[in-house]
Order: sequence, then C-alpha cells, then structure tokens
Amino acid sequence: MRCKFCRRKAFIKIHYPKMYLCEEHFKEYFERKVKRTIERYKLLNFNEKILVVVSGGKDSAVTVYVLKKLGYNIECLHINLGIGEYSEKSEEYARKQCKKLGVPLHIVRIRELLGKGIGEVRTRRPICSYCGLTKRYIFNKFAYDNGFDAVATGHNLDDEASFIFANLMNWNTQYLAKQGPLLPRDGKFVKKVKPLYELTEREVTAYALVTGIDYMLDECPHAEGATTIEYKEILNRMEEKRPGTKINFIKGYLRKKKLFEIELGEHELRECRVCGMPSQGEKCSFCNFWGLEKPLKFKITSDRIKESFKSL
Amino acid sequence: MRCKFCRRKAFIKIHYPKMYLCEEHFKEYFERKVKRTIERYKLLNFNEKILVVVSGGKDSAVTVYVLKKLGYNIECLHINLGIGEYSEKSEEYARKQCKKLGVPLHIVRIRELLGKGIGEVRTRRPICSYCGLTKRYIFNKFAYDNGFDAVATGHNLDDEASFIFANLMNWNTQYLAKQGPLLPRDGKFVKKVKPLYELTEREVTAYALVTGIDYMLDECPHAEGATTIEYKEILNRMEEKRPGTKINFIKGYLRKKKLFEIELGEHELRECRVCGMPSQGEKCSFCNFWGLEKPLKFKITSDRIKESFKSL
Repeated sequence: MRCKFCRRKAFIKIHYPKMYLCEEHFKEYFERKVKRTIERYKLLNFNEKILVVVSGGKDSAVTVYVLKKLGYNIECLHINLGIGEYSEKSEEYARKQCKKLGVPLHIVRIRELLGKGIGEVRTRRPICSYCGLTKRYIFNKFAYDNGFDAVATGHNLDDEASFIFANLMNWNTQYLAKQGPLLPRDGKFVKKVKPLYELTEREVTAYALVTGIDYMLDECPHAEGATTIEYKEILNRMEEKRPGTKINFIKGYLRKKKLFEIELGEHELRECRVCGMPSQGEKCSFCNFWGLEKPLKFKITSDRIKESFKSL
Repeated sequence: MRCKFCRRKAFIKIHYPKMYLCEEHFKEYFERKVKRTIERYKLLNFNEKILVVVSGGKDSAVTVYVLKKLGYNIECLHINLGIGEYSEKSEEYARKQCKKLGVPLHIVRIRELLGKGIGEVRTRRPICSYCGLTKRYIFNKFAYDNGFDAVATGHNLDDEASFIFANLMNWNTQYLAKQGPLLPRDGKFVKKVKPLYELTEREVTAYALVTGIDYMLDECPHAEGATTIEYKEILNRMEEKRPGTKINFIKGYLRKKKLFEIELGEHELRECRVCGMPSQGEKCSFCNFWGLEKPLKFKITSDRIKESFKSL
C-alpha cells in the first residue's frame, strides 16, 4: 500500500480515519494531532514552564520528544520507585532519553527520600494504589515547590478509555468526575495535562519507532496486570469491529462527565498539618501513609534536595 | 458431578455462586430466585391482576410458568407483529404455552389493528425502534383499558446488562434513568415488572428445558443482531473470567442510576389529543407514528376488540 499523501511505500495503516501513511507523513500526522489536542483542550501555552513526568517507558518519552519539538519550555522529572532492578533500568532509560534531547532531568528516588521502595511497605493497601498516591503527590509537590505551571504525563487514549471503562463496569463513579486531558490548577494542585490523550497506544509505539526513541519495555513487576490488560483487550476487539470506538467513547465521556459531579460531594479541603498541601483530614493521605512528621521539600536549590535527586 | 443438595447426578453447573444442581434442585433454585426478586424489589402482590406479555419465546414463557406456579393472578397478551411466517409461528407458540398452563390469552394483531405489519411501514425510523414503541404502547394501553395492576415482561439478566452496557458505551445516558426490575405506576402508565431480572439467559434456557416448556427458537428477521449480540458476547466473556460480572454490573447500576436522573429534564407530560395517553407533544408518539385520528381501545368486552384479538 502507498502513502495517502506522497505515494511512497506505506509505513502504517491508520484505522480511524482509515488511511495509509509513510514514515514522514505519519510523523506529521502524529505531531499535528498532539498539537490539535493541546489547542482543542487549551492544555498549554508557550510561556508556561512545564514539568514532564518521565518513567522510562514509551508514552512519557514520546511526550517529551513532541513537546520539545513543538517548542514548549519543558523540564523532566523521573521518580525512581525503588523497585529493584526494574527501577534502576527505568532511571537509565529516562536519563538517556532526556540527555539525547538536551532536556533537564530531575530525579527523585523514593527509597532515599522515604526509606523504603514501593512494594517494601507493610500495609493492607494494594501496592499500585499507594504507588499512584506517592507518584501523584511527588510530581505535584515538585512542580509546586519549583514554580512549574503544568505537569504533563504520557497517558494515551488506550489508558484513558480503559480507565473510564473499568470504572464504569465497576460503578466506581466517584473517579469519573475529574478525568480528562486537562485538570486545571486548583490552589496548590498544579495544572495536569495529557498531550497524548487522543492518540492510541499503537500510534504512540509506532511514533517511538520512527523517531528512534529508545524506551523501557519491561512491565512493572507489581503491574495490576490481568484486569487492566483485559479491559484494554475488550476495547481493542470492539475497536477492530468498529474503528473509532475508543475515541468516540472518550469523547462521549467528556460530554457527559458532569453527570458524575454529584458524586464529588462538598468536602472543603484544609491544609495538611505536616506539609501544608490540600488534605481532607488533618494530615494528607501521602504524609499519613508514609508516617511523615516533617514536610518533604523539593526546592531544586535547597540543600535537602541534593540528596534525593540530581539535575543532569 | 453431583448435586450440592441431594448428591444425585448434576444437571447444571451454576457459576455464581459456583454449585452443581440436579434437575429438581435447579428448579427449586430458579423459582426461589424469581420469588426473591419479586420480594426484594417489591414487584407484585397476590391481590394484583397481572398481564404477562408473551412473545412465544423462552423468556416470556418461563415468566408465565413461574408466576402461575407461584400463585399470581395472571392473564397473557400476545402481540402479533405481522412479520409474515415468523409472527404466525410466534402466535402458535404463545397459544400452546398458555393453553398448556390454562392461562387466559389475549391476542392483538398489529396488521388487523393498524393496517400494516412491523417492517411494512415506509419510514426513516429503524424497524426495531418503532416496533418497540408499538409494543410498549399496546401492552400499556391494553393493561390500562382493562384494569390490570401490572405488566410483566420476560427480560432476563443478559438483556438488562447488555442494554445498560450498550447505552453506557455509546453514552446514551438519557435511557439510563428509568431502567430496572420495577417501573412504578405513573398516571396512565401501568406498573412494569421484570421477574427474571436476576436470572441469566443460560438459566432461563435450562429452566425451559427441565420444565418441558416449548418455545419459538427463530430470531426475528429484523433482529438488531450484530450490536446487541456483540455486547452480550463481551459480557459473557467477562462473566467467564470473573463469574458474577453481570449481576454485579446490574446491581451497581441500580445503586447509581440516580446519577442519570439529571438527564430526564422537566418536561411535564400532557394528554395525547387522540388517545388521551401521556404525551410530550399534542399527539403521542404512537398515534403520531401510525397516523391515527381515532383512539385504539382494547376493552376486552367492547365490540371493536373482537376483530383484533380473541380470548382463547
């Protein structure tokens, strides 16, 4: 098959809208789509200081690459989760990715910072649950302490569609009021954006391939696995039968998500007595989970920080 | 494998909760579950006059059988849709089923009543859509005209779960506020109940088998087909991996359906100027679709009725 635009040999078949593209035109298509996502949902401005969270995997690596190419003012943060060799390898990939692009990288190591790695805490809370809590707290606090205007993550269409799908199937509707490509700044919560929101996992993988982005393939040893993967498979089968299923599902969700706002309740947030960040109780769930009595501070210029992360 | 209760040879494996049952104990299990559904959702009382809508298929036949066995005061209504041989065969099955149980059967034939059968109307509206409209109007009006307290239909768990699932996937949330095993009486809308709400299609089929209920196997030639069947298949695959998926999905829905009420809007219903039934516009959608200027009346003792249906 030949490229729709230049008749060169096709590199990929896009299913929705159906078209064949060569490498060059696929790159153009992909980048234009990220640009359109940023514009449509008003995610970012060129005068903003953006922190991209990089894991070492393909999605965040592609996010850094495209945002840099589009000319945004970005720095990166890698959170080393302290999960043995997996985390060491991840950090190496994140370093290489940022070095290649000449983007400043900050690294926070959870074991150095909190004494224990993810998976080493004795708790009844599921690992993926407190890992998520920890990462979200750290990238927000890091961005807040250092005056970033936004945090960008690499979530793609498959991630988002399967998240909504899973929470609908289980009627965990309390998580459905605040999803989407943009979470605006709210007090000490820095703005969160997802530039790959409308791009499928398959497209992101293909883009990493054509741009020569090297990334970590290993799954986290604690990966939620079965369930998430199963939901992604179901959506993939539906997508195969009816191309456009995922994007239409997610757009339908965005039109209707106000239905779930009733579930948010009215709890006024107060300030965590330890770290001063927004909290439902006296102590925020991060400080509470990790048993902290002194706040973590991530000011890049501060002394304490030198121990827990380095700028390249 | 042996029956959980009597150690006789097992007839069926129930997946959720997992157990093997012989024919006798499966019947007991099935009937107890219908009874529990009726009690839990307060569907019916023994002093009510109940109209069961019978299509000739297994679900409605089983509904009649169990309600009769449990001692409810029932009569049946068959709506002959005028879809050629399919409808003739359906009517025959409905007749045989009711005769065998000694339950009065009323028959309304759409072609005799409205001049055309389903599928013969020139319209842009999809066939399944105006067929549904027509059936719902007729069984409600029939019940209303003849003083029935409730209309019971054969919808099973698979029907209900796939309906909710399909409408969620397509974000047709306006249909999701008023589903469930019970729709209470609301003015001229007679109460609607679904006694098989918590029983799977597989269980209903097995019950028809052990009780020797003879039913129509043919699919309607206009069947929505692909989509509905695809959604049922997806749910079946999920059920296989995690038994209980369907019932938990439907119970979650019932807990959360108030979220969709916001979509109902506030439109006051008025009376259709033709038939006097509740209507959003000047004419109700049934009288409007069929171009009626005189009301249909279904009073069993009236003259007009003798032409369009007969009691056995």
